[in-house]
Amino acid sequence: MNFAKGHGTENDFVIVSDPEDTLELTPETVAGLCDRRAGIGGDGLLHVVRRDGQWFMDYRNADGSIAEMCGNGVRVFAHWLRTREGVAEDRFVIGTRAGERSVTIHQANDTDAVVSVGMGKAEVTGVSTAQIGDLSLAGLGVDVGNPHLAAVIPDLRAEQLAEMDLVAPVFDRDFFPQGVNVEVLTPLVDGAVHMRVYERGVGETRSCGTGTVAAATAALADAGVGEGTVDVHVPGGRVTVTVDDEGATLTGPSKIVATGEVDLDAL
Amino acid sequence: MNFAKGHGTENDFVIVSDPEDTLELTPETVAGLCDRRAGIGGDGLLHVVRRDGQWFMDYRNADGSIAEMCGNGVRVFAHWLRTREGVAEDRFVIGTRAGERSVTIHQANDTDAVVSVGMGKAEVTGVSTAQIGDLSLAGLGVDVGNPHLAAVIPDLRAEQLAEMDLVAPVFDRDFFPQGVNVEVLTPLVDGAVHMRVYERGVGETRSCGTGTVAAATAALADAGVGEGTVDVHVPGGRVTVTVDDEGATLTGPSKIVATGEVDLDAL
Repeated sequence: MNFAKGHGTENDFVIVSDPEDTLELTPETVAGLCDRRAGIGGDGLLHVVRRDGQWFMDYRNADGSIAEMCGNGVRVFAHWLRTREGVAEDRFVIGTRAGERSVTIHQANDTDAVVSVGMGKAEVTGVSTAQIGDLSLAGLGVDVGNPHLAAVIPDLRAEQLAEMDLVAPVFDRDFFPQGVNVEVLTPLVDGAVHMRVYERGVGETRSCGTGTVAAATAALADAGVGEGTVDVHVPGGRVTVTVDDEGATLTGPSKIVATGEVDLDAL
Repeated sequence: MNFAKGHGTENDFVIVSDPEDTLELTPETVAGLCDRRAGIGGDGLLHVVRRDGQWFMDYRNADGSIAEMCGNGVRVFAHWLRTREGVAEDRFVIGTRAGERSVTIHQANDTDAVVSVGMGKAEVTGVSTAQIGDLSLAGLGVDVGNPHLAAVIPDLRAEQLAEMDLVAPVFDRDFFPQGVNVEVLTPLVDGAVHMRVYERGVGETRSCGTGTVAAATAALADAGVGEGTVDVHVPGGRVTVTVDDEGATLTGPSKIVATGEVDLDAL
């Protein structure tokens, strides 16, 4: 089976092109492909199919389970469509389980692209607190299709954030009955924040697309403005989030580093 | 650049075929290829070259540094030569920085092989102790080209071993001035042991070729015999080690799961 490997700010994916939607990707096959030692390795799998006359991102988690959406994955998906599947426009729509996503390709060659994705409205659900080791946080609950607690730490500098021991957060289970992704970030300075993220059920990751939207929303609120553009630095790179009354737009890089053939019998 | 991905008991490698020895693989390129998110991903890289009329395993660690030998890597290397580089014999010699290694291919197709490797003599250097969390260990110092402390825990069962919290060992720095790889194992029962390994400078791994040789040596000594054959179960699978007065032979699986092209500019 043909595959490719790509990433968006080091959130990485196995890409499987299947326009006719004929491949049966069982959870075991997906988990085998995403296994970092015995397979190809990835945080998830982008199954590229056409359904109902539209390109559809059939996204799977690394454990083989089905996921709604992935903010970093959809940039890589759009990059793949634009450079490998004959999509000739720079603006188009991708179907996902969370609904349609509008994408804009700002630049793209075979390996590198810059892509914007409409992420919909980020809903502020209130204020909540959490504990990470010795650190008590207060942050904004933000729903970006999935639940986030984005906490701006007063006076925190990027170097201090990098050195933090980001252990599993203890959070308010009444406020977040489905669990929560927690973003810890520096205050907004010169239009930029630095953020680290602890993803629900995963642990710390190099990047989380919806998390950057939650972080930008919290940073703007903390700065006393509701709208604006925020450069969000994550361990895996940098993205830009614009929040206005239409919703949030996430702009960031995509890289496709390799293509090849995998023997499914060897997984 | 063409690459392949393979593993031996889940000790995994990026394979780069370069018989003419013309590629300049800088530490940065190797580290980029072995990066599990931004590159292909692997514990190390097998650079397949011919030097002085002989196949030579130019092995690199994932951080780009040069390594002497890799007991799991040499099986995958032999598998690759036998199925992809036109080597027609089932017994041949591979050059490594630690000297020549004799290999025997027991079976091989494109994806799967079973390979034996002569590992040389494992030298017992004495008895030493270590501490892993609350557990005090006494084990055998074994030199397999690199230093090991292999500790048989009396009455330990495989299930208990699997549940152990294998944190960084505290060991005797006078006995192991260069640091040490620590194997924790069950006593020899029906010719088999279960082992976990904490590799020097790496942490716990799924498998360690020289570690299985050290473990077999310690298990045989603990059972009151100096020679014999031991099935060593590791988290990544199973290998067989034979120890006799000629030295140790390590037999185990190799898998080559994928081949492809990687764009070095995208790393």
